[in-house]
Amino acid sequence: MLSKANAKFIKSLQVKKYRKQEQCFMIEGAKSVLELLRSDFEVVQVLGTRDFLESIPHGAPGERIEVSDAELQGLGEFQTNNSALAIARMKPNNIISVADQEFALVLDDIRDPGNLGTIIRTADWYGIHKIIASAETADFYNPKVISATMGSFTRVNVFYTDLPQYLNGVRHKVFGAFLDGKNIHDVSFASGGLVVIGNESRGISPTLDRYITDKITIPRYGEAESLNAAIATAIICDNLRRG
Amino acid sequence: MLSKANAKFIKSLQVKKYRKQEQCFMIEGAKSVLELLRSDFEVVQVLGTRDFLESIPHGAPGERIEVSDAELQGLGEFQTNNSALAIARMKPNNIISVADQEFALVLDDIRDPGNLGTIIRTADWYGIHKIIASAETADFYNPKVISATMGSFTRVNVFYTDLPQYLNGVRHKVFGAFLDGKNIHDVSFASGGLVVIGNESRGISPTLDRYITDKITIPRYGEAESLNAAIATAIICDNLRRG
Repeated sequence: MLSKANAKFIKSLQVKKYRKQEQCFMIEGAKSVLELLRSDFEVVQVLGTRDFLESIPHGAPGERIEVSDAELQGLGEFQTNNSALAIARMKPNNIISVADQEFALVLDDIRDPGNLGTIIRTADWYGIHKIIASAETADFYNPKVISATMGSFTRVNVFYTDLPQYLNGVRHKVFGAFLDGKNIHDVSFASGGLVVIGNESRGISPTLDRYITDKITIPRYGEAESLNAAIATAIICDNLRRG
Repeated sequence: MLSKANAKFIKSLQVKKYRKQEQCFMIEGAKSVLELLRSDFEVVQVLGTRDFLESIPHGAPGERIEVSDAELQGLGEFQTNNSALAIARMKPNNIISVADQEFALVLDDIRDPGNLGTIIRTADWYGIHKIIASAETADFYNPKVISATMGSFTRVNVFYTDLPQYLNGVRHKVFGAFLDGKNIHDVSFASGGLVVIGNESRGISPTLDRYITDKITIPRYGEAESLNAAIATAIICDNLRRG
């Protein structure tokens, strides 16, 4: 049964301040909750309809709480939650090091939670598990981010840091998309490097310019002025996997 | 000055039923309004701050109404509107024919307005100006769609129709993304054809299967189960422009 105090606790996790205080976050929807149960996140609670709770493995971690559809809808961000919601513990913001033969993304103020979630999902599709993000980038544990990852939040790590300082210490190639770079259809991405994705409105910050070793450009065949940040990330990932 | 009746009329356009009744739609934000003024849409009203109204060409069409920032914010969908909003007349849902040497997109129930808007923006980037959409696809004139297109709604046409009937009449190649198709990195897209994009949750409908002449697959290098529909569209567009 869902107590009033618990419902209040869960709803508070929609706000960053309370997530930070409680060191917990919320995962909505059956698919994402099932991915959570298979992950290395520490699960605190699993709230679900009777059918959902009966469908999960007996040894699965976390306290189980049976709730009705109506109760679920009242708890989360989703307008229609499909049968489950879980609470898990946040991980510490550990530094990410990138191996020589590895690709990672660097996010320069991606502020829209939907964009960040979609970027995480896309990175996972392309086998990229490490993201370094500026402090102004949307919060990984925002319920909208978690939900847009469609479960990929369990396989992709995000490290929040000061980007100039981080990039100053790397020996990798650092690719960045600009209007006057080399056509990505002709770029040889070799076997590793960092790809910087700029902010939705203003692109890559001037303060990062000096760390970009390879300026690249997504060729345009029509008239749109720019691409959505998650879309640009996907196109670059597809091209870098071609080699 | 903004009358109460006009404010009510404008707000009503957030709802499809009233857009249909009035045959009008709303465009938010300075960038999109400026694109509208350069387009062939019939402009009914331009509401803007004094600075914005003074910045647009004298001969620009539509009634001009000076409003405050606070008034603008109360009118639209945006939480912060950047200085302008316009009302324009909807265009009739005219049939789109695709030339032999041309690419067009076919949207099979893309229900999320943000996804549809992003697909339109991406199509415009890749020089694709024609989209054929199922009746269940989000409404082109939804303010969230218009806003996500970032002005590309002025250059890309969407025709809503019964897809099986439409596809039955075409002689083009019809590409569709499936899990068991040919790797798009190896596909020769030639110089024209239709690309079917499936619904966010269930992919391409079984009723369209028989019209797909070329099954294609976006290669996966990691573990995400699927890609967002707009992301998949962008990756396919980038690959088809490589030829």
